[in-house]
Amino acid sequence: MLSKEQTQQTAEGIPVGVSNRHIHLSAEHIEALFGKGHALTPLKNLKQVGEFAAKETVTLVGPKGVIQGVRVLGPVRKFTQVEISRTDGFSLGVVPPLRDSGNLENTPGIVIVGSRGAVTLTKGVICAARHIHMGEEDACKFQVADGDHVAVKINGPRGGTLDNVLVRVKPNFLLELHIDTDEANAAGLKNGDTVSLDLRVN
Amino acid sequence: MLSKEQTQQTAEGIPVGVSNRHIHLSAEHIEALFGKGHALTPLKNLKQVGEFAAKETVTLVGPKGVIQGVRVLGPVRKFTQVEISRTDGFSLGVVPPLRDSGNLENTPGIVIVGSRGAVTLTKGVICAARHIHMGEEDACKFQVADGDHVAVKINGPRGGTLDNVLVRVKPNFLLELHIDTDEANAAGLKNGDTVSLDLRVN
Repeated sequence: MLSKEQTQQTAEGIPVGVSNRHIHLSAEHIEALFGKGHALTPLKNLKQVGEFAAKETVTLVGPKGVIQGVRVLGPVRKFTQVEISRTDGFSLGVVPPLRDSGNLENTPGIVIVGSRGAVTLTKGVICAARHIHMGEEDACKFQVADGDHVAVKINGPRGGTLDNVLVRVKPNFLLELHIDTDEANAAGLKNGDTVSLDLRVN
Repeated sequence: MLSKEQTQQTAEGIPVGVSNRHIHLSAEHIEALFGKGHALTPLKNLKQVGEFAAKETVTLVGPKGVIQGVRVLGPVRKFTQVEISRTDGFSLGVVPPLRDSGNLENTPGIVIVGSRGAVTLTKGVICAARHIHMGEEDACKFQVADGDHVAVKINGPRGGTLDNVLVRVKPNFLLELHIDTDEANAAGLKNGDTVSLDLRVN
């Protein structure tokens, strides 16, 4: 049993970024969906430097349902990656495996429809595993390294602890916990809320 | 910092019951929605004794969207209560406050449509706070009492801890953790999975 002091032993606030369903596209797929020579139009910069929400959206068509207005995020990626929640998966009739970004082996595909064409993706649909972006200074402060898994403490009526949170360290990363909409809704979190590392178990 | 032994100190398995969106109806509203003299038709018994899923479903109509096929649960209640997830709330355009069942003061309403009519509910839409049903023997075994709040430990890749879980003890209750679909999807839980009390913080 822990003392009250021990259970409250947490580190400094980490801002939360809630990832709604979205898609990263390869150059080839941008052309197939939006037309030859098309380039993504930035709509809004995301917190991580160089990342942006594009004006373009796609429709996802699964065996059981359709989700329209799925935001394309830029810049262009080497491989197309569809990030949806488990709830979205039930609507579409696809079970997205929990994966770190870029780990797309043995993941399901889906049909993607853009304004000028469609792509039958054979793999690339995932439920993104939660992770914390941080720069090297923060990694030093929190005493963690790239690739570590940590636990995160959430306060509030739907509070608790999230285990197995991947730490991703790069010099230009800004401190941000990325969770999906299921995790945000389940925990009562929204963009800009803050959480802490749970030092009891890290 | 806890020893590994301490962090693994958990109690026996508690089965998980995932509550999809549903509605409990008053006698008056059953008649308004399904016709004068109508009685609910049991379709399937739920785990808790006397509770059942009815054949009847309703449509919820909010300011931003509609959800069809929302299951009616029986038996008849004194007051109509709509239980939806925060995700459902975004679809409907309603923010369901986190509440224990029956605590309906200052909750939003919604339009409910049945096969024979509609009801404009003025209050009763909630996001049900997670809770554990248990009989007196289990309460004794877990050393908890009706009204206590406990923490629950979840294993697996999306594992962690759920704080503030209400304990509800009644002689005829069967052991079951009730969570909603957001919580289930966020934690990678499905019906019949088991969790444990987190004895570190209880």
